[in-house]
Amino acid sequence: MAITASGCHKGELVEADILRADLEGRSLDPKRKSSYETLLHCQVYKRVPECGAIFHTHSVANTVLSRRGDKVNLAGYELLKVLEGITTHDVTVTIPVFDNDQDIARLAGTVDAAMRQGAARHGYLIRGHGLYAWGPTLASARHRVEALEFMFECEMRSA
Amino acid sequence: MAITASGCHKGELVEADILRADLEGRSLDPKRKSSYETLLHCQVYKRVPECGAIFHTHSVANTVLSRRGDKVNLAGYELLKVLEGITTHDVTVTIPVFDNDQDIARLAGTVDAAMRQGAARHGYLIRGHGLYAWGPTLASARHRVEALEFMFECEMRSA
Amino acid sequence: MAITASGCHKGELVEADILRADLEGRSLDPKRKSSYETLLHCQVYKRVPECGAIFHTHSVANTVLSRRGDKVNLAGYELLKVLEGITTHDVTVTIPVFDNDQDIARLAGTVDAAMRQGAARHGYLIRGHGLYAWGPTLASARHRVEALEFMFECEMRSA
Amino acid sequence: MAITASGCHKGELVEADILRADLEGRSLDPKRKSSYETLLHCQVYKRVPECGAIFHTHSVANTVLSRRGDKVNLAGYELLKVLEGITTHDVTVTIPVFDNDQDIARLAGTVDAAMRQGAARHGYLIRGHGLYAWGPTLASARHRVEALEFMFECEMRSA
Repeated sequence: MAITASGCHKGELVEADILRADLEGRSLDPKRKSSYETLLHCQVYKRVPECGAIFHTHSVANTVLSRRGDKVNLAGYELLKVLEGITTHDVTVTIPVFDNDQDIARLAGTVDAAMRQGAARHGYLIRGHGLYAWGPTLASARHRVEALEFMFECEMRSA
Repeated sequence: MAITASGCHKGELVEADILRADLEGRSLDPKRKSSYETLLHCQVYKRVPECGAIFHTHSVANTVLSRRGDKVNLAGYELLKVLEGITTHDVTVTIPVFDNDQDIARLAGTVDAAMRQGAARHGYLIRGHGLYAWGPTLASARHRVEALEFMFECEMRSA
Repeated sequence: MAITASGCHKGELVEADILRADLEGRSLDPKRKSSYETLLHCQVYKRVPECGAIFHTHSVANTVLSRRGDKVNLAGYELLKVLEGITTHDVTVTIPVFDNDQDIARLAGTVDAAMRQGAARHGYLIRGHGLYAWGPTLASARHRVEALEFMFECEMRSA
Repeated sequence: MAITASGCHKGELVEADILRADLEGRSLDPKRKSSYETLLHCQVYKRVPECGAIFHTHSVANTVLSRRGDKVNLAGYELLKVLEGITTHDVTVTIPVFDNDQDIARLAGTVDAAMRQGAARHGYLIRGHGLYAWGPTLASARHRVEALEFMFECEMRSA
């Protein structure tokens, strides 16, 4: 997989800040370490075979919502149809919130256990930290993140 | 009418994503389908003879307000004068909210029945989905949408 | 004075949309009318001899605040020092709110009566409509408007 | 130190608006005075030996929070790790709020007394005025300000 190098400012990324790593999270560039959260990316790639791209976003809305409770329920939004396999607004999608953990291997294990039981099909939040979401292509992953962030912004302003 | 093709990301539209359709919603381009919501556009063009352009917008403010109740009353705003036939701030304009429906023909029928009775003269909201508004020209439709969205933003922040 | 022509969209102004008018509000361009609110500009130019530029802004914050009460008190902000003659944050500046009125001559009279009594030294709000503020130069008027709008945004988010 | 000249609009700075001053706050340019708040910069440079750059920001969020109480506690945010010496989200960082004071020497003394006792390690707020934060380089100072402002925005929207 391609992944950002560790310690890069996300607003200043250049092409050289993207490196390759294997699915155990080992950088294939001997001189650089990959992102501190590489194992969270590995977990999704291994658990979701069709996954081709993962986005991790820090927004005000997703951060605020992740601190309010253990899940965010999104229901009745037309934009839910952007998510995989959803063809109507008339559903409830639950985005789980996991407690943040600096032990990324342990956090990846927690996420994986939840996903094995069917949770987090469309993405998940880490409390006080951000969103993980994905799709088969970069474009689809981005469209889903945009839809989720839009709905999070609506939820934040509705409470 | 000109209308966007189905399934296009609205932030990435190119000229080729605009196709022609008739007022029954049939694409005149044999290779592409028009927007999933084409029949809502047809309904307005048929019901409002002077309509020359229709805008459908997804904003945080219009989405949040559409989930609060069955209408949005706009009163006392100078910008109401941007709407058709309004010459004073000292009026109340009601923007109705219709329940979302994946059966677009049925939703268009609901909207049409309301408009026949004089509702939705200046536009309408679909719950959790967005705004429809229009005008005789692209520019006038855009100015009206801008005015409505500005007032929605004020209403959202006033509750 | 230079003033925008009537009926121009403020986001699309070009140089030709600025015309000259006298201080009674009569356009010096025989083919074009000046802004519907020209007499409000005349009132300030006549009442405030050092005034060299007037800005009228429609922001979400100033619109929301103008609908909450009959004045906005700004106190304790460092940015108050941007306003004329103010050298400390430790003051209260009152921005009065006047009811909107489509009879602009009458509204200008109301504003003038208040200003004769010392109100609105730093600007005023029209309810549901916007801010009027000014300064000896375009730059100073803009800096004051920026400071007022920043404080309005803070007030809106503090209530 | 390099510092902005007094009286410059911060949105219109040009290179000539940056001058040099000594750590007692005396401009080395005989024709120009340095910022009115120069002594606050001197205080940090003298108290924090590794400091290489100081940012002072006026944001809506930091202004609103600074008017709510005498400190802002930031806890549980992943972005706390951007701050110096912090390696986990699982801490509470306290950003103190000092009352604004037009006597900058006196305000610098108040800040210095608090810093001597270990407060304001990561920055401080002046009530109704803004944030001071710093770092060993311009880039690190900016990253810290960005992280603090992001968390302030979350706090403002959570109350």
